[in-house]
Amino acid sequence: MSYFENFLKANQAYVELHGDLHLSIKPKTKVAIVTCMDSRLHVAPALGLALGDAHILRNAGGRVTEDMIRSLVISQQQMGTREIVVLHHTDCGAQTFNNEDFQEHLKCELGVDVSGQDFLPFQDIDESVREDMKLLRECPLIPDDVIISGAVYDVDTGSMREIY
Amino acid sequence: MSYFENFLKANQAYVELHGDLHLSIKPKTKVAIVTCMDSRLHVAPALGLALGDAHILRNAGGRVTEDMIRSLVISQQQMGTREIVVLHHTDCGAQTFNNEDFQEHLKCELGVDVSGQDFLPFQDIDESVREDMKLLRECPLIPDDVIISGAVYDVDTGSMREIY
Repeated sequence: MSYFENFLKANQAYVELHGDLHLSIKPKTKVAIVTCMDSRLHVAPALGLALGDAHILRNAGGRVTEDMIRSLVISQQQMGTREIVVLHHTDCGAQTFNNEDFQEHLKCELGVDVSGQDFLPFQDIDESVREDMKLLRECPLIPDDVIISGAVYDVDTGSMREIY
Repeated sequence: MSYFENFLKANQAYVELHGDLHLSIKPKTKVAIVTCMDSRLHVAPALGLALGDAHILRNAGGRVTEDMIRSLVISQQQMGTREIVVLHHTDCGAQTFNNEDFQEHLKCELGVDVSGQDFLPFQDIDESVREDMKLLRECPLIPDDVIISGAVYDVDTGSMREIY
């Protein structure tokens, strides 16, 4: 039994609320938010975003990877965003393992050798935000005048704290 | 002037609504949703997700990349998800360019040579969902008993249509 059927049913109710819109493909605020896949963070209400406001990019940890850069370059060059917010959060899954143990686990569990692969875990949440802001600032594909901010989201309280 | 300040202000109001929660790090529905960064898609309301329900992974196009696989493996092995939904959408930014022209644009605009890099554009939205479902089914890091579904979201109407 898949859970997907429930999403299809819930979506039928959403369509009634949504109505017929014709929003621009270009985000209104010109912001792209880089954040984590965590289920306890709903980005739009937490940041006050309306439909059409901002690109939302999410992976495990909210880390700046090659794929994030690919997405941000498309966001900026094709759809005009000029600002990036790196938003990590408390109690992150990326804090629950280290590369060596995780690689060993995958070898035992799935029989796949992923030795050497970095799954991008971290310990210090403020530091991970700073690291990823630095990666963006140093990336030649991100123009120097793009504004880069960082923050940590608290999954218990819903509050956001800026990181400098 | 950064737009980020507005997010901080909006977040103050959200904290009042949020209250003090202690949800599990493990998503309640055991589903991970792979979708696009597009600003016109708010995943939680569109699929009827409550806080804590599902992992949400987003990049340009909602494509299955190495970084998506990294994130899904963490989602499954560390946080117990057992189902994946690939959700692409109409009028996608990934349909607005081709690799060759985009590489040329980046060379002119930013002076960076990215020849050979695949930015994962596509033309046919149903086909892109099928391609990405296939990549997941064939990936040795995704166990065979993980349920994989696909759908296309309509950014004008808010409706979701299953892809087989």
